[in-house]
Amino acid sequence: MIKVGIVGGTGYTGVELMRLLARHGAAQLSAITSRKEAGMAVADLFPSLRGHVDLQFRDPADAGLDRCDVVFFATPNGIAMQEAESLLAAGVKVIDLAADFRLEEVAEWEKWYGMSHASPRLVAEAVYGLPEVNRERIRNARLIANPGCYPTAVQLGLLPLLEAGVVDPTSLIADCKSGVSGAGRKAEVHTLFPEAADNFKAYGVPGHRHLPEIRQGLGRVAGRPVGLTFVPHLTPLIRGIHATLYARLERDIDLQELFERRYASEHFVDVLPAGSHPETRAVRGANVCRIAVHRPQGGDTVVVLSVIDNLVKGAAGQAVQNMNLLFGLPETQGLDGVPLLP
Amino acid sequence: MIKVGIVGGTGYTGVELMRLLARHGAAQLSAITSRKEAGMAVADLFPSLRGHVDLQFRDPADAGLDRCDVVFFATPNGIAMQEAESLLAAGVKVIDLAADFRLEEVAEWEKWYGMSHASPRLVAEAVYGLPEVNRERIRNARLIANPGCYPTAVQLGLLPLLEAGVVDPTSLIADCKSGVSGAGRKAEVHTLFPEAADNFKAYGVPGHRHLPEIRQGLGRVAGRPVGLTFVPHLTPLIRGIHATLYARLERDIDLQELFERRYASEHFVDVLPAGSHPETRAVRGANVCRIAVHRPQGGDTVVVLSVIDNLVKGAAGQAVQNMNLLFGLPETQGLDGVPLLP
Amino acid sequence: MIKVGIVGGTGYTGVELMRLLARHGAAQLSAITSRKEAGMAVADLFPSLRGHVDLQFRDPADAGLDRCDVVFFATPNGIAMQEAESLLAAGVKVIDLAADFRLEEVAEWEKWYGMSHASPRLVAEAVYGLPEVNRERIRNARLIANPGCYPTAVQLGLLPLLEAGVVDPTSLIADCKSGVSGAGRKAEVHTLFPEAADNFKAYGVPGHRHLPEIRQGLGRVAGRPVGLTFVPHLTPLIRGIHATLYARLERDIDLQELFERRYASEHFVDVLPAGSHPETRAVRGANVCRIAVHRPQGGDTVVVLSVIDNLVKGAAGQAVQNMNLLFGLPETQGLDGVPLLP
Amino acid sequence: MIKVGIVGGTGYTGVELMRLLARHGAAQLSAITSRKEAGMAVADLFPSLRGHVDLQFRDPADAGLDRCDVVFFATPNGIAMQEAESLLAAGVKVIDLAADFRLEEVAEWEKWYGMSHASPRLVAEAVYGLPEVNRERIRNARLIANPGCYPTAVQLGLLPLLEAGVVDPTSLIADCKSGVSGAGRKAEVHTLFPEAADNFKAYGVPGHRHLPEIRQGLGRVAGRPVGLTFVPHLTPLIRGIHATLYARLERDIDLQELFERRYASEHFVDVLPAGSHPETRAVRGANVCRIAVHRPQGGDTVVVLSVIDNLVKGAAGQAVQNMNLLFGLPETQGLDGVPLLP
Repeated sequence: MIKVGIVGGTGYTGVELMRLLARHGAAQLSAITSRKEAGMAVADLFPSLRGHVDLQFRDPADAGLDRCDVVFFATPNGIAMQEAESLLAAGVKVIDLAADFRLEEVAEWEKWYGMSHASPRLVAEAVYGLPEVNRERIRNARLIANPGCYPTAVQLGLLPLLEAGVVDPTSLIADCKSGVSGAGRKAEVHTLFPEAADNFKAYGVPGHRHLPEIRQGLGRVAGRPVGLTFVPHLTPLIRGIHATLYARLERDIDLQELFERRYASEHFVDVLPAGSHPETRAVRGANVCRIAVHRPQGGDTVVVLSVIDNLVKGAAGQAVQNMNLLFGLPETQGLDGVPLLP
Repeated sequence: MIKVGIVGGTGYTGVELMRLLARHGAAQLSAITSRKEAGMAVADLFPSLRGHVDLQFRDPADAGLDRCDVVFFATPNGIAMQEAESLLAAGVKVIDLAADFRLEEVAEWEKWYGMSHASPRLVAEAVYGLPEVNRERIRNARLIANPGCYPTAVQLGLLPLLEAGVVDPTSLIADCKSGVSGAGRKAEVHTLFPEAADNFKAYGVPGHRHLPEIRQGLGRVAGRPVGLTFVPHLTPLIRGIHATLYARLERDIDLQELFERRYASEHFVDVLPAGSHPETRAVRGANVCRIAVHRPQGGDTVVVLSVIDNLVKGAAGQAVQNMNLLFGLPETQGLDGVPLLP
Repeated sequence: MIKVGIVGGTGYTGVELMRLLARHGAAQLSAITSRKEAGMAVADLFPSLRGHVDLQFRDPADAGLDRCDVVFFATPNGIAMQEAESLLAAGVKVIDLAADFRLEEVAEWEKWYGMSHASPRLVAEAVYGLPEVNRERIRNARLIANPGCYPTAVQLGLLPLLEAGVVDPTSLIADCKSGVSGAGRKAEVHTLFPEAADNFKAYGVPGHRHLPEIRQGLGRVAGRPVGLTFVPHLTPLIRGIHATLYARLERDIDLQELFERRYASEHFVDVLPAGSHPETRAVRGANVCRIAVHRPQGGDTVVVLSVIDNLVKGAAGQAVQNMNLLFGLPETQGLDGVPLLP
Repeated sequence: MIKVGIVGGTGYTGVELMRLLARHGAAQLSAITSRKEAGMAVADLFPSLRGHVDLQFRDPADAGLDRCDVVFFATPNGIAMQEAESLLAAGVKVIDLAADFRLEEVAEWEKWYGMSHASPRLVAEAVYGLPEVNRERIRNARLIANPGCYPTAVQLGLLPLLEAGVVDPTSLIADCKSGVSGAGRKAEVHTLFPEAADNFKAYGVPGHRHLPEIRQGLGRVAGRPVGLTFVPHLTPLIRGIHATLYARLERDIDLQELFERRYASEHFVDVLPAGSHPETRAVRGANVCRIAVHRPQGGDTVVVLSVIDNLVKGAAGQAVQNMNLLFGLPETQGLDGVPLLP
């Protein structure tokens, strides 16, 4: 059994990691930390875990993280970059669910995240954990930068088009809608139920931290810088991201066939039949991205619809998928749950 | 007092018309029809109207619609086109909240709506009831085609750009999100609570009936046919439409100033300060469209955010606004309600 | 025009007071305070009020509250008791929407609210502002203790039974369900959207602050202490309280007639026809309590269903009703809004 | 592998059965019927099942149900009573998720369900499938009447009190709140999203079909007829039932210890620590009933809070639990899923 530690287990990615690990079969949660809740039983904070997780939150200092095989950081940005080095030195693999190692350019990262980077050297070593692009590099990595939720949905939706070079990479649009759990389990007014329920709004239109991450990922496969307009919206879902992606077609091609071929051997990307409209609930709780591709009225605009559960394929599920790769397990181990519908 | 009739009062636009008319001050509801619920007290079907509306639904045949000053059709498509003629002949003004008179081209209408048009002659006479564009023609009309909900949000958001000729009219994108009341009060599986709650999906990507209506409206102000990709989505709101609009800027211009100037004298269009993100709840229950305009990272893509309450500015409120114009009342009469937040 | 001040206008009762006062007709909001948001335009915090309220939040110290005719405290508990004295001395009437003056017994208050009372003398003077019970005393008061939301729904539902002496007053049960806005606009984890949406739970079963308030009110009309089990629940509504009330019938009586007679002249209490089930949305945004009374299977258990909008009849609307009484206005002035449905 | 058939697989209990069976490990779905959707791929109707269920709906006539080991009826009331006989004759075990075999008294059943019973003989044979009460009889049965959702939550909450004889069985109250999926996947107006969202109401107060079922179950353990007031409410949850139960204590007893002892060996009933308030989301998607018991202010009213997922422990999960018992499998087989939170 792989011994697993989680740093910062009181947020939504933390509880989701625990849900997945509790039924993983080849991994065992052995330590979970929280400075604030140290000493509290996990199942007292998250009653859904009663009977499934029998641990207490511990202070990171005495949680024995360095005796784990792998440690997940389910922390705010800026924590993993301070602690990864010593864990790696102790032979522990590290998967950061926050953004500390996602951007190659440290200066770019510092601009968007508003702090100095504590371990630029590790940025160079870290592997961006999108298995559908980076599978082999992930297998051999020590340190994984688990992708953001929006970046996962957007990249998986646009990759086939950019790899095939059939769209104009300078005028991409990603109109994205996220459930409120994407904002985390912090006490804030704007995500209170009476503020977020029965309400819909865009946010971050002038600039959002996931923009450079998406641009970086798409630029790599396009082989050149891409032009992207990214507009995130907050929608009254608990979980779920729906990315509606627009690109200008430059070459006539069978789009359905392109997508089906690209993802034929990908277990966690499901290309729906032509004419489909994926729903977020069809991935609720599951580590899968469902995609449909359209060309309305046969015009030159491609519309890709891409949905994930932001906490699973957009966070904890993808992190477990990366862990499976890191340890040579079947990639699907512990990730075969059926979405909860209704 | 203007004597008002409503045909088909058991749907959401019907109950919303009654809510607004109950406090209008210069109009009085004198007849409301429903074949199916004839004889039932309105307040038994809609308990929110107890103490406010003291009428029964009547069969259209004996409701005395021809003795009204104005009749609203809050019916499915295809009803008003059969009954408008005789009402107009009796001197009654007609406002159709359905789509029967929205498209100038009868053939186009018949293609999208899948039926023969029963009164093509009236199509030519009908005035498209978007007061911010057609105010003077509305004042002198007998028959109003009240705009669709998506078309209202999209047109108000794009008009300033097209009128000023500053964007490429051939590559417009309207990514629209609607609350579920937009689908009406018909018993259908896909709008059941357990299907629509905590779920988000696009629909009608290959083609939606509001597409030709929007194209027609935008084409008029652009002075040439426009190219539009229109993607509607169903979102777990009761009420509200959020249109996220994308256009390619062809000329440098102060966008904020352009929008503020265009709508300076419009009571029901509110241009938010630069950098804003309008929320659907900020228009809940009110006859107003709130708009923000962005130019992310100073690039050449304009992003316009436009929100309305689909049942008010997107239907019943706009219909009352049109009635006010038809009868020479102050345009804001009965439409000064404050949005309900939270 | 009555000059109105609001202390603590950044919460939900504050914004609701502003919504109602903006259309009141005989009262004008002239000052609104917030220590934290002093200097900010009200409409920047609450975009629903753009075009309706053109004030800024001010620091209480320089807001000129003592030049108002009436001041509403829309503050947390413990504020009004410190500030009411000086306002009253300046001839300003005071309506406290918090709990400072609701309990006659200061010791009881201090036990439940966990602080010393700053003005016990005023407790004796304050009038409990439930107009359906205390109308004449309210007209002549200077200081009103506006009732809690649960207490309003429960008292209006049980009053007819206790006044008529037809139920056992020692075994009453109030099973109450509240929307999340009842918890206020404070940043807290347990009322975040992802915590409160698609979730239902009881809270405060061992004891809730509204229990002594309800017991006091019911005891007065029963003429003896009552025994009450009160169980509040948090339900995924933005607004709305549904009280399901159980009492043991001790005398055979026509319950429907009893309720209709009791509330025949009450404008804001609506007794539904026999066999009805009131819905919270049928009072959304309106100052009305709708009630139905049942006697299932003709047994000796009476079931009363009582619904209000917690922010209107349960808070701001009732406060305006009290203001109308205090100033000799028609009791319904500014309170004739139609509920928003759907 | 146990060969499983499902009759009527297009409703919510059907899709939930498929979700659970897809990961069961010792059972295999081999036939699923729907007259209306015969020929359609299951995964086309329920996209959540893509990759998990690779069957088509078939007409019951040619689905080969009689070659199954067990058939679940996930049908409306009145179907299983017509078809169970022939399946039993073919050696197939039958689990009816509808109500056909739940009431011992056929006359009572016919009164509440408004139809003649087609197989009264089987009523006598059927075993009421509440394992926590009837485990041994279930193991030896051929025909299981799977309990209703409300009856499961209410019986599990009250059983310890009635078995111990510590409460007055003549004045029980069950105030129950259900998510909308409990109303099924039928197209009906009152469960549309715009009707049921942000709304709360009681229904069926004069009498609900689950009342006699609960009375029968409680009466058995009490050893005498019970008096029960049962008030169900519709709440804007997709899934979940919260039963708030009231009983009059007649004997002093350690309630917490009573409940913990009663359920000490029950895997699917979780007694929370004293002072707890169970939440519906803490059982979302899982086959568990979580219970807390309170005695507010030390009075003589016991309050029990009991939550289940109406589609799991209240329907499909309990049916699988019964199947496990029928076939000698571990009772928890395939039912160890972790609730989905948030």
